[in-house]
Amino acid sequence: MTTKSSVPGISVCLSPLMLHLYDVHNSIVVIIDVLRATSTIASALSNGAKSVIPVDSVAECIKLGKQMDVITAGERDGKIAEGLTYGNSPLQYSKKFISGKTLVLTTTNGTRLLHMALSAGANSIITGAFCNIGSVCSYLAGEKKNVVLACAGWKDRINIEDTLFAGAVCAYLENDMPLLSDSAKISRALFDAAGGNLFDFMRIQGASHYHRLMGYDLEDDIRFALTENNADVLCLYEGGRLIKATL
Amino acid sequence: MTTKSSVPGISVCLSPLMLHLYDVHNSIVVIIDVLRATSTIASALSNGAKSVIPVDSVAECIKLGKQMDVITAGERDGKIAEGLTYGNSPLQYSKKFISGKTLVLTTTNGTRLLHMALSAGANSIITGAFCNIGSVCSYLAGEKKNVVLACAGWKDRINIEDTLFAGAVCAYLENDMPLLSDSAKISRALFDAAGGNLFDFMRIQGASHYHRLMGYDLEDDIRFALTENNADVLCLYEGGRLIKATL
Repeated sequence: MTTKSSVPGISVCLSPLMLHLYDVHNSIVVIIDVLRATSTIASALSNGAKSVIPVDSVAECIKLGKQMDVITAGERDGKIAEGLTYGNSPLQYSKKFISGKTLVLTTTNGTRLLHMALSAGANSIITGAFCNIGSVCSYLAGEKKNVVLACAGWKDRINIEDTLFAGAVCAYLENDMPLLSDSAKISRALFDAAGGNLFDFMRIQGASHYHRLMGYDLEDDIRFALTENNADVLCLYEGGRLIKATL
Repeated sequence: MTTKSSVPGISVCLSPLMLHLYDVHNSIVVIIDVLRATSTIASALSNGAKSVIPVDSVAECIKLGKQMDVITAGERDGKIAEGLTYGNSPLQYSKKFISGKTLVLTTTNGTRLLHMALSAGANSIITGAFCNIGSVCSYLAGEKKNVVLACAGWKDRINIEDTLFAGAVCAYLENDMPLLSDSAKISRALFDAAGGNLFDFMRIQGASHYHRLMGYDLEDDIRFALTENNADVLCLYEGGRLIKATL
């Protein structure tokens, strides 16, 4: 456990099952669900969405859709979930479409983990993906607090792309902040091993989400989600919503 | 979930917290606790111990020591636990000392995970460490069953050395058996990244157990535990004991 008095450092939590092992009370928690929740959140906020409301279930999403003037979105098994209007592709949320609107989003892994971090009493919560890694790193470097990089994975399993993102943040910040867990060092080594070509690394490794999304003909989504800073905004969770915050 | 009918493959479980995600009923489970339980088990059996009885607690260890003619061993916080006679160093169990004897061993992580796998109904259980990686791989290649490489870690956290061992087994067997999980591919990539010098990799990465054991002046233990095949026996769990089995 890290304490308030120690030098702030970075821990990596590779599965939601391990979140309780980390001292989230005294940490900024970065929710990571690269394919695709947190990429979609960055994309929507970068393109002018007023806010994104993450919810855990399709039912909750539909309910909010009836109560408020919002766009409801979410997928199950690669298709727009019944009762919702849009899917979970970051490419869908263009400026023209999303600017000034509120998006209510449900996903299987990322939104659930965000609520877990909230229930666990996280000091503050942001979302991170390669799309907005610049803002994430600038924010974390400036805050000088402990950081927990929390990977959503897939149904509690560890996945490659979220681990790669955690490793990238570790790589970019390790001169400023120590890496506190072996998980952080493993992530960092994995990101190094990818050698800068994340798409090819995912393909060569046969990453499970690479196969799943390629099966849905979503190569463009994967390429977008593995590109750094193409939706570079800070996505801060505040009062039940993710908003674009100023650095 | 893998099924009996699919081609047998390899999954990697990086923390005891994730064991329930894997289909251990239809798998050989390899318990991995490189520093140092499973290295010590290989060392003792390789040097002629009749069997190793893994137990979860110091109290249980003491109890068996009173009932049977055995050597009791275990550490807590790097010291021989009160009431036990020996520690958890693989170098302690020389042929002269351990041959023909039964060792009752308690450790914080490895023995606990073994009992978890047993309770979960594992098809069969062996222990693995770099000391006996040759026998582990030969056995797994010959059995043609699903494999779960189960890392003990440290108090449920993922550690580098157990992940490296899982990655080594994946590397040696991947031509015969597919890697079924992203965790397996991450482990495999980490083992590649170590480039054959595991001790230096642990040092450079600042692995938590490297620091812990160096702090106890146990460099020789670390070097022994990171060397392949210096205690190359198959350690099979059968009837409550680990025994040296014939390949």
